[in-house]
Amino acid sequence: MYTYDYLYDFTKRVFRKMGCSEKDSEVIAEVFLAAEMRDHASHGMIRIKDYFELWKSGRINVKPNVRVVHESPSTAVVDGDNSVGMVAARKSMELAIEKAKKAGTGWVATRNSNHFGIAGYYAMMALKHDMTGICLTNANPLVAPTFSISRMMGTNPIAVAIPALNQPPFVADFATTPIARGKLAVAEKKGEKVAFGFVQDKTGNPSDDPTILKSGGSMLTLGGDRLHGSHKGYCLSAIVDIFSAVFSGANFGPFVPPSVAYLPVLEKKVGEGTGHFFGAIRIDAFQPAAEFKKKMDEWIETFRSAKPAEGQEKVLIPGDPEREAEMRIKKEGIKIVPAIKDDLIKIAGELGVEFE
Amino acid sequence: MYTYDYLYDFTKRVFRKMGCSEKDSEVIAEVFLAAEMRDHASHGMIRIKDYFELWKSGRINVKPNVRVVHESPSTAVVDGDNSVGMVAARKSMELAIEKAKKAGTGWVATRNSNHFGIAGYYAMMALKHDMTGICLTNANPLVAPTFSISRMMGTNPIAVAIPALNQPPFVADFATTPIARGKLAVAEKKGEKVAFGFVQDKTGNPSDDPTILKSGGSMLTLGGDRLHGSHKGYCLSAIVDIFSAVFSGANFGPFVPPSVAYLPVLEKKVGEGTGHFFGAIRIDAFQPAAEFKKKMDEWIETFRSAKPAEGQEKVLIPGDPEREAEMRIKKEGIKIVPAIKDDLIKIAGELGVEFE
Repeated sequence: MYTYDYLYDFTKRVFRKMGCSEKDSEVIAEVFLAAEMRDHASHGMIRIKDYFELWKSGRINVKPNVRVVHESPSTAVVDGDNSVGMVAARKSMELAIEKAKKAGTGWVATRNSNHFGIAGYYAMMALKHDMTGICLTNANPLVAPTFSISRMMGTNPIAVAIPALNQPPFVADFATTPIARGKLAVAEKKGEKVAFGFVQDKTGNPSDDPTILKSGGSMLTLGGDRLHGSHKGYCLSAIVDIFSAVFSGANFGPFVPPSVAYLPVLEKKVGEGTGHFFGAIRIDAFQPAAEFKKKMDEWIETFRSAKPAEGQEKVLIPGDPEREAEMRIKKEGIKIVPAIKDDLIKIAGELGVEFE
Repeated sequence: MYTYDYLYDFTKRVFRKMGCSEKDSEVIAEVFLAAEMRDHASHGMIRIKDYFELWKSGRINVKPNVRVVHESPSTAVVDGDNSVGMVAARKSMELAIEKAKKAGTGWVATRNSNHFGIAGYYAMMALKHDMTGICLTNANPLVAPTFSISRMMGTNPIAVAIPALNQPPFVADFATTPIARGKLAVAEKKGEKVAFGFVQDKTGNPSDDPTILKSGGSMLTLGGDRLHGSHKGYCLSAIVDIFSAVFSGANFGPFVPPSVAYLPVLEKKVGEGTGHFFGAIRIDAFQPAAEFKKKMDEWIETFRSAKPAEGQEKVLIPGDPEREAEMRIKKEGIKIVPAIKDDLIKIAGELGVEFE
């Protein structure tokens, strides 16, 4: 088990050694650790290797000039200058919050960025300003639209964070697919099948094989099949893609660049890098902040009091599982599985940083 | 078969007779007919009876003073004064578009409204202004959150319309449940079962009984069950509810008033009427309009060229099915089933309007 501070310092040092500024390295470390603390390990320390390899192949810019290239009172487009995703994303969300202070809401589309960790981190940045935060991003294509076998979209997540008063905030952060890709990897390692409704084979038939992506298969959108509303998951994923990439001028759909160095750079470009979309909404642009937050408490308490189904303990509010994980992990520490520990030791050795 | 003009004139006359202004009656008729033309008959002529009955029981205000009660440069809250939903909704979306002209984006939350027809109508209002349109609404509680058996949410739809250049616009308009409630009614009339994944019984067990809502059952959120991501559908539906009702000061979740007169007014109120949320985004607040629309053409063409799955003809773009329906219905006319025709004849008789 590791402490937050140990992994934070290590991560910061790794990115410092790669050439990132002190401030940028802090931001990057904070987002990595936020994923670990919220029990989204798939976006935590395991990913350091991907960034390290991208950096070694010269595919990421550690001295970026993240800048605004277009704006209106409530909007902006940010060019991330091919930075580590967290750096462009954090600055973009800060800008959305600044815009919201003056215009009531702020909306920033970001291009020329890379994988940015957990979307929820940026949405939650709005909370301490008494704002609702929104964050969307597109991602490597793995997912087929309804009726198709082509991998056209990423797991394109949506994060929305809404402040409350005495209750913890409402924080939804979810992929627009039934499961995250990481679950396929876990099942594969265990030699298990997955449930139907997550993936299809290369001809479009339902599959329970977690390795199917390696033989031309694809992931399905939320809903799973047309009968159960996969076309709605497709709509959602498409909306995330368009807001992230067409609004910003990034690559959309099948042209989103890989976030790992072992996949080659794509031949065709339709924009710059990966795209994100950020929103900040001042709650007092709609209701006096105190009233709004009291009403959110009432909303949360109402939903908490919903009757559980037979065999279920309680109804959860979006954000509850991550908060419970955070309390547990604060006490118990952060677990790093041996294979990832080995990777981190190797990276530490190459960069001349300590890790044990 | 009926023509657009005949049903439009009839609908307008009905609402004029109920006391609505000429302008309001035109708006209402236009939204009803938009539903029919897009083959969403569940939100078309069948619903006139519901409004008529609400009006007869004095539960709807035909002389409303729809007004702005709070605003910032990019936001506003509108009080619909208990109007027919279309009247408050249309004015709210017009206001969002006006705000966007100045601030880049406009966001309007509306309270004290009623059922407003199809959400897509309002989202599409933005298109001719070279804007992206968004529309959300909450609705009568029929849907249980994941792990629960309590009906806490409506089918809470999301509509997003994005302009293109030579391609038709991208128009997504979907409930955050696997199916619309209307499909249960259709199966019931035919004496058929429905697929599992749409509804559950009063203890939370999966059910294929389309009449289960009458015996304590509830609808499920998009995803169907926890394994397949119903908690993501729950997040979506909850976000729609909070943006529509907590932002505006309307009733949220289980307290949304019924949109039919045969259900009693709820005892507890947590706000005013039904709530909606509207957004308008000037596309040139992000990219020059011509470039953006060309890029949207490219996005649409890319997705159209996705390989169909075995046995499927083609991949659809959100909005395609409704456009195809519209072309067909323009030629063939609008079909009104006998039971609805009888209702309309009865209403016509009571109001002294012609219908045959």
